[in-house]
Amino acid sequence: MEHTSRSYEHELKDLREKILLMGGRVEEMISQSMRALTQSDASLSKQVIEADREINQLEKEIDELSFNLLALRQPTASDLRFIIMSLKIVIDLERMGDLGVNIAERSLELVKEPQLKPYIHLPILAQMAQKMTKEALDAFVTRNETMARSILSQDDGVDDLTRKIFDELLELMQQDSKNISRAVRLTYVAKYLERVADHATNIAEMVLFMIRGEDVRHQSPKHVP
Amino acid sequence: MEHTSRSYEHELKDLREKILLMGGRVEEMISQSMRALTQSDASLSKQVIEADREINQLEKEIDELSFNLLALRQPTASDLRFIIMSLKIVIDLERMGDLGVNIAERSLELVKEPQLKPYIHLPILAQMAQKMTKEALDAFVTRNETMARSILSQDDGVDDLTRKIFDELLELMQQDSKNISRAVRLTYVAKYLERVADHATNIAEMVLFMIRGEDVRHQSPKHVP
Repeated sequence: MEHTSRSYEHELKDLREKILLMGGRVEEMISQSMRALTQSDASLSKQVIEADREINQLEKEIDELSFNLLALRQPTASDLRFIIMSLKIVIDLERMGDLGVNIAERSLELVKEPQLKPYIHLPILAQMAQKMTKEALDAFVTRNETMARSILSQDDGVDDLTRKIFDELLELMQQDSKNISRAVRLTYVAKYLERVADHATNIAEMVLFMIRGEDVRHQSPKHVP
Repeated sequence: MEHTSRSYEHELKDLREKILLMGGRVEEMISQSMRALTQSDASLSKQVIEADREINQLEKEIDELSFNLLALRQPTASDLRFIIMSLKIVIDLERMGDLGVNIAERSLELVKEPQLKPYIHLPILAQMAQKMTKEALDAFVTRNETMARSILSQDDGVDDLTRKIFDELLELMQQDSKNISRAVRLTYVAKYLERVADHATNIAEMVLFMIRGEDVRHQSPKHVP
């Protein structure tokens, strides 16, 4: 029994660490893909696209660990919430990795032409989304309710900035048709970053569920273009 | 014991039915939002936006049912896979509902101006995404492996058509700057539909996992613009 119990704790620790590892890699993919864009670095884009394999592998491992914990142990209510959260959080993390790949793909297309304009708001948007991601993972490790709640309040700022970037790019398109294909790609990058922030918000909501057993999702409408 | 066992079966049945109900509502939201777009029907768009509340409510109910089944019963391996799948499938269904809302929101913006061009490819893309969604839910109910696999093979067609629509719209933007704001919104609609198809693919992958305990995710790369 002693042994079983130690090994159970060990499996839970494993699960937690793998989620953190996956979260760290995803953060890195987002920041590298943005660096690839702003520094027109095609080889960095390719690195991000490559890294997606590792993310997919981690997703499978986390699912397997969670499944085994549910199948073979009888987790208490609080551990059960943690395991359920793990099963859900990997979906967000995996899609954040995909969004990093999407940014890297657009960067690869964009470096073929001269830079449309100095990137000012897009890196700020990226910083906001990355900060939310980092804080969501910190809130998860430290089970910090205040931090998790503060993430929920940052999402509106992200939506506003995304809209602003969209309007700027629309104007550039209307000024000169040569701008269009680059500007459209940049609107996509803005949308990807906005979705990264949405996923960070989802994670924060799940952290609150894990800590308190309280479901805070969908308490305010948050549909933006 | 007899009673407990009947009630366990009953809870599983409840869970299955709620997922089907949610899936049916999501299908309806996608098709209504597309009808709102092609028929310039603002009030239908608003209905779709309203329906999102119900989707969010169903998500919470499904999560709660799944949680309770895990906490209070000791599901067998196959039931456990079904419950885990339910916890994951609601995430896809909820986001598909959000995408329906997004289409309805773009429709509301688009009806303010004359229609850019007859919608030909976009409704075809919508039909493809809806067919995949419907089949994913059918495969789920009937545990039909062949159908689930056939969905995976449809995703490439969706990606190709999305790219084609994107190119057509880019050309319209380049022809006349007055087309830009409408064309950009239509590229968004195409992306939303592509993501609906991606979610249907996710569901099909989970159905295969549920039937066989086999994880088919990420066996082929599928990153497209």
